[in-house]
Amino acid sequence: MAQFAFINGSIVPQAEATLSILDRGFLFADGVYEISAVLDGHLVDHTAHMARFERSLNEIRLKNPYSLEEWSRFGRDLISRNALTEGVLYMQVTRGAPAERDFAFPTNGTPPTAVMFTQGKNILRNPMVETGAKIITVPDLRWKRRDIKSVSMLAQVLAKQAAIEAGAFEAWMVEDGYVTEGSSTTAFIITRGGKIVTRPLSESILPGITRQSLLHLAEERALTIEERLFTVEEAHETAEAFLTSATNFVLPVVAIDGHFVSDGRPGEMTRRLRQVYLAMACGSAP
Amino acid sequence: MAQFAFINGSIVPQAEATLSILDRGFLFADGVYEISAVLDGHLVDHTAHMARFERSLNEIRLKNPYSLEEWSRFGRDLISRNALTEGVLYMQVTRGAPAERDFAFPTNGTPPTAVMFTQGKNILRNPMVETGAKIITVPDLRWKRRDIKSVSMLAQVLAKQAAIEAGAFEAWMVEDGYVTEGSSTTAFIITRGGKIVTRPLSESILPGITRQSLLHLAEERALTIEERLFTVEEAHETAEAFLTSATNFVLPVVAIDGHFVSDGRPGEMTRRLRQVYLAMACGSAP
Repeated sequence: MAQFAFINGSIVPQAEATLSILDRGFLFADGVYEISAVLDGHLVDHTAHMARFERSLNEIRLKNPYSLEEWSRFGRDLISRNALTEGVLYMQVTRGAPAERDFAFPTNGTPPTAVMFTQGKNILRNPMVETGAKIITVPDLRWKRRDIKSVSMLAQVLAKQAAIEAGAFEAWMVEDGYVTEGSSTTAFIITRGGKIVTRPLSESILPGITRQSLLHLAEERALTIEERLFTVEEAHETAEAFLTSATNFVLPVVAIDGHFVSDGRPGEMTRRLRQVYLAMACGSAP
Repeated sequence: MAQFAFINGSIVPQAEATLSILDRGFLFADGVYEISAVLDGHLVDHTAHMARFERSLNEIRLKNPYSLEEWSRFGRDLISRNALTEGVLYMQVTRGAPAERDFAFPTNGTPPTAVMFTQGKNILRNPMVETGAKIITVPDLRWKRRDIKSVSMLAQVLAKQAAIEAGAFEAWMVEDGYVTEGSSTTAFIITRGGKIVTRPLSESILPGITRQSLLHLAEERALTIEERLFTVEEAHETAEAFLTSATNFVLPVVAIDGHFVSDGRPGEMTRRLRQVYLAMACGSAP
């Protein structure tokens, strides 16, 4: 089926949704993005994603071209046009395409570029839920404002590619000996004492929306959460490990740098956390 | 006059040189670029720029879609079509536009995207040659592989914009107290003893082509060059300062963070270095 995409206020066949080669997203990575999961045709945790989108735009001083209501309406129209039941809605805004390339912001009222597209994806029946994901660790080469969900992501691309070539699903990035996060996911370990450990929010990591929701759900269930740094060595010796993201929800990690996590099978507490998250995600859709 | 641009082997009206919204340059900043100055219709130091382009492509493991000869032929055609006498030729390659967005490299033989365009610019009669440029210093927020000339440049955009809003031309970026380089230029100071000081090459800075040519010219003239780190404080107290880039050649810096450099007028040795570079640049064009 031909897919549609959204560009600057219109839903058009995806092949017609084209950009100027002078778009600052293409020339400078001067833009930010957001992804919401779609389950049963409905957006998951969309309000939280849109709040982070607004924050990213503010941090790079790019005015949001649409209201939350407009984004949601256009997004739902697109999901409907593409008959998407399970997958993702991708949204991006850049600082537009002025007539001349210049590092500084355009001054002539250049409108931003706003884009949305959808991708089908097996979120619920992800086979890695049963097998678990293998990960590797790599140096964190990224810039210092990782709290902004920008498209300036060459470091993440190279990290993910290193993982794929090592036969792994994801790369956890490491700075000063401590895990920051995955190339496109948040990193968690669970100690032998049953404590859920993840890095506290700062400019060093993206404030994961799934991370936020899961920690909230875990708190409600009186599970112990420790927001603190952890080393690669601690991860190698941990009882359980998992990763979260908008499209992976909660996914068990069964090997880190070739070390099995415990017996190399998805952990019991991780399985439970995924179920808790799934119940929320499926239930949150109106 | 309508401008032409180059895209994937063809020279077309610039408005028709459009990109897919799935281009990895737009979604991930997964691409590299190069800029050569054009004087009197001829490319300046083009071979060195193309060697760096090749290196950047190799570092991100992106195959160069064209030979040096093809790039040069297409580039000269474009310059001719646009009747460009003075300005720049911009070249960019990204990892193409696969059907699905995924951080990892495309596996299905997705061709890269190759783009060129030109911009007219007063290079020889740049008014800042006489007035000098004011600069500010800002924290260096960039990623750790600044030796790759990638389009993953949101940090540079924000640095340049901070400079413009402070009434300056450029921002020198600072890490651990030491100047790395400008947002789009190389940073130099000249000591009271007449030594030309600039940061040595490493993964912390871009290997500037104009930097390389100028250092070579300075060596030929038996000027003293010190490739070493320098602090913001040393820059505030320096005898002369200047910056280099493909489009600015050698440009005097007359104020740093509001501190005048010496008497606040372009330095004599800087003026001489610009003349030496200009002679090479004008002479190198065939």
